[in-house]
Amino acid sequence: MTHRIADLAAALGAEFAGDGDVMVKGAAEPQQAGLQDLALAVNPKYADGLAQGKAQAAMLWPGADWQALGLKAAIFAPRGRLAMAGLTRMLDPGPDLAPGVHPMSVIDPTAQIGAGAAIGPFVTIGAGVSIGPKARIASHVSIATGATIGPDALILQGARIGARVTIGARLICQPGAVIGADGFSFVTPEKSGVEEIRETLGQRAEISAQSWTRIHSLGSVTIGDDVEIGANACIDRGTIRDTTIGNGTKLDNLVHIGHNVQVGDDCLLCGQVGIAGSARIGNRVVLAGQCGVNDNIFVGDDVICGGGTKVFTNAPAGRVLLGYPAVKLETHVEMQKALRRLPRLAAKVAEIEKVIQKS
Amino acid sequence: MTHRIADLAAALGAEFAGDGDVMVKGAAEPQQAGLQDLALAVNPKYADGLAQGKAQAAMLWPGADWQALGLKAAIFAPRGRLAMAGLTRMLDPGPDLAPGVHPMSVIDPTAQIGAGAAIGPFVTIGAGVSIGPKARIASHVSIATGATIGPDALILQGARIGARVTIGARLICQPGAVIGADGFSFVTPEKSGVEEIRETLGQRAEISAQSWTRIHSLGSVTIGDDVEIGANACIDRGTIRDTTIGNGTKLDNLVHIGHNVQVGDDCLLCGQVGIAGSARIGNRVVLAGQCGVNDNIFVGDDVICGGGTKVFTNAPAGRVLLGYPAVKLETHVEMQKALRRLPRLAAKVAEIEKVIQKS
Amino acid sequence: MTHRIADLAAALGAEFAGDGDVMVKGAAEPQQAGLQDLALAVNPKYADGLAQGKAQAAMLWPGADWQALGLKAAIFAPRGRLAMAGLTRMLDPGPDLAPGVHPMSVIDPTAQIGAGAAIGPFVTIGAGVSIGPKARIASHVSIATGATIGPDALILQGARIGARVTIGARLICQPGAVIGADGFSFVTPEKSGVEEIRETLGQRAEISAQSWTRIHSLGSVTIGDDVEIGANACIDRGTIRDTTIGNGTKLDNLVHIGHNVQVGDDCLLCGQVGIAGSARIGNRVVLAGQCGVNDNIFVGDDVICGGGTKVFTNAPAGRVLLGYPAVKLETHVEMQKALRRLPRLAAKVAEIEKVIQKS
Repeated sequence: MTHRIADLAAALGAEFAGDGDVMVKGAAEPQQAGLQDLALAVNPKYADGLAQGKAQAAMLWPGADWQALGLKAAIFAPRGRLAMAGLTRMLDPGPDLAPGVHPMSVIDPTAQIGAGAAIGPFVTIGAGVSIGPKARIASHVSIATGATIGPDALILQGARIGARVTIGARLICQPGAVIGADGFSFVTPEKSGVEEIRETLGQRAEISAQSWTRIHSLGSVTIGDDVEIGANACIDRGTIRDTTIGNGTKLDNLVHIGHNVQVGDDCLLCGQVGIAGSARIGNRVVLAGQCGVNDNIFVGDDVICGGGTKVFTNAPAGRVLLGYPAVKLETHVEMQKALRRLPRLAAKVAEIEKVIQKS
Repeated sequence: MTHRIADLAAALGAEFAGDGDVMVKGAAEPQQAGLQDLALAVNPKYADGLAQGKAQAAMLWPGADWQALGLKAAIFAPRGRLAMAGLTRMLDPGPDLAPGVHPMSVIDPTAQIGAGAAIGPFVTIGAGVSIGPKARIASHVSIATGATIGPDALILQGARIGARVTIGARLICQPGAVIGADGFSFVTPEKSGVEEIRETLGQRAEISAQSWTRIHSLGSVTIGDDVEIGANACIDRGTIRDTTIGNGTKLDNLVHIGHNVQVGDDCLLCGQVGIAGSARIGNRVVLAGQCGVNDNIFVGDDVICGGGTKVFTNAPAGRVLLGYPAVKLETHVEMQKALRRLPRLAAKVAEIEKVIQKS
Repeated sequence: MTHRIADLAAALGAEFAGDGDVMVKGAAEPQQAGLQDLALAVNPKYADGLAQGKAQAAMLWPGADWQALGLKAAIFAPRGRLAMAGLTRMLDPGPDLAPGVHPMSVIDPTAQIGAGAAIGPFVTIGAGVSIGPKARIASHVSIATGATIGPDALILQGARIGARVTIGARLICQPGAVIGADGFSFVTPEKSGVEEIRETLGQRAEISAQSWTRIHSLGSVTIGDDVEIGANACIDRGTIRDTTIGNGTKLDNLVHIGHNVQVGDDCLLCGQVGIAGSARIGNRVVLAGQCGVNDNIFVGDDVICGGGTKVFTNAPAGRVLLGYPAVKLETHVEMQKALRRLPRLAAKVAEIEKVIQKS
């Protein structure tokens, strides 16, 4: 599918200059762009690339001299990354899912599937499932008994939706994600070593041999609207009530959400983040890759954690955290600086000692 | 299915008070509980919630005044979490797997499947596989050639059991888990940089360009009784002998167990834990979320590691560890305290220096 | 299948001694070895085990006295681990995949599949896919529209290959791996908190409520020859150009590769490593388990990172790194040593202060 530059600009709410009738089929980095590509050069540092590529049209930074850059047309992006969102949405061909229900699927007769669904081969949909209109469900997906999914869902290959899971509108679920595995909750007959050291901060009396009894997960998972779940990410069921994910929250690949966790609205949980059981995460929280949040604690609204931050205690709203254990970003920077100088400091103290001993 | 309060209490080995004929269908948090729910209030802090909900019966902490709380009946839990285990087991409807073998499955004629099995659609079971009685195998599971699985297995959607894997009784395997992938073991023709820096602790002579040759995994995986494997967790085959997981050990979601690893009995390996190749983990070891264990080391019985602990060297039995690199919990607390005060300490030393220089 | 010792030695390019006609069927650790096993004792520490086992033949360290060890034949391995590679390759029966295309698979008529393919049950192959000769594709695999895969591919159970992914020769893809999920890339209408704190290093003016708009992934993934992808590992598509993985690079289980990442040749990325979006990794880089690499940075050729290292800034070629944040290995060792002595240092400074105050 090709697009007129003038139409693209209008759809993006952006200005354009030059020949609005130039047609583009895709987007490309400036130096790789072909004749039918819109070159993406939203920052002056990409200007050189334009000369190397063949693009006739480009998306440029505000104020760029498109004619000097040898272009026939240009779209101007006041906020480049935002324009990228609109542009990539328009140019994305989307997954290639044939309309209708594939004959090699197993769909319970009591399942209700909205109009306009595309359901691929080897999909299973259980009893009492309800899926909104225009669902696109790729091959190998399983949706278990009683799950409810809103309109416009896109569920990719081999994703697993557990029993009684409830999901809002416009879900995007990447391949292999598991929504609604059982929680990881076990108990010993007598007090366990873990319970003991939490009380004593590390002291243990006698160690006894015990084995673990399972606490089953009677709850399920409730997910809001406009949520995206990454590839092979896992969200566990709650013990009694549901584990919850708020509207607009996005989970990256291999993220782990424990049982009973409550994640608020518009959060970003990046690759390999782990949230332990019963933690509560506020709204608009950003956890960079490989962050961890302890069980049963609270992370306030608008908290941002840098990569690998391990949050052990409640984090007040608005905090910017880094480190293991998590501290304020500026404290972390200061501590690391001091730590690097520590060997020198120790040497200095030794010298002072000598001076004092002499006098 | 509904339960009489008196019957529930008897099954849990707990006391009850009030009208034993009150019927409950499920469990709920106090404030959300309906007329047919057993409210769970095993701690006085939940008492207020009871007034907001509609429960007629509750599970209460020992000594609670159930009549003052407006209930018709109450079960008393001396150890709340343990009672939760029994209660949730009784109330768990379990996965909805139709009995019998689904026609859209591919089962090798030489496979032996015990009586009472439920095998879902799109399941593959290879040659020579042996599965004990009452197995419940959900959709999309694959079980490869020669695997042996004990009685009462519950294997959930899309789990992968590799060739010649041996598993004991009562396995619970969450969706997407991979038991028996190939080990990650490679070798270079000449000594590799990794081998060199392990010997020299960081020094490198000349760096040479080499590529990796694969060491194949001839071993498989052996798993004991009463083991649970989390969603999308991965356990690799051994190189020559099997990778092993002991009885009663539980693995959470996204846990990684490298080749040749030996994990003992009754361990808890929480979300995203990783154990590198050939490490040995004792019995009753608890590794909290995102812990890592180095290759070829030993972690003794009853070791407990806090969240994100990275264990680089052998850990003696009974240790409580935290940190990167792992140190004793109390050492970690002390080090962190000192580290926070370090910038002030440095300032103090600078001042002392000035005083000394003057005198 | 059985092998003559003389033939094994010849195939490995190794020397042998004794009766070259002794036959072996498999390999085993010395103490577990049966009559038909080749005992693996490439290091003198395994010598004792030979007496406990029943092996007639063994692979031994150079110079070992095979007759004194009671053997009929021995193969000598100048570099044990390298010989292990050749030996395990010869003895590996490989996955048990029936030749031909299973009738319960869904293969688009426009897909081109090379000669000698083995394609298992419940496999889907999309329109325009091209797969080289001798592909072995296990059950439940999905290969989406337009993907291109070279000769001799081994793709194991439930792996997901996304649309337009390009892969070279001899791919080994472990179960559950996802190649070509959408990138995790979102933008807010106004500057986000994350953008702000990156500029100010932690300072925030006013926090505003915003939600995330998706940047779609128009690029795909390009993978070289001789690459191995671990179980449940995830590689995201690029935004405009492809995410790339070089020749000979090996990814372990649960590794996460973000969008636009470029990984060079002959790298080892161990279990649970995560590389954030747009990072570039050189050639022959080794990242031990649970390492993390920040987005948009560069890790030079031949860098080696110890377990759990979090790389936040560009790493020059040849560096050996450890820690969070990553520092040179020797710096890390020095810092940790000093940190352990820090409480004592603080006490010493307090004492010095007292002495000075007195005088």
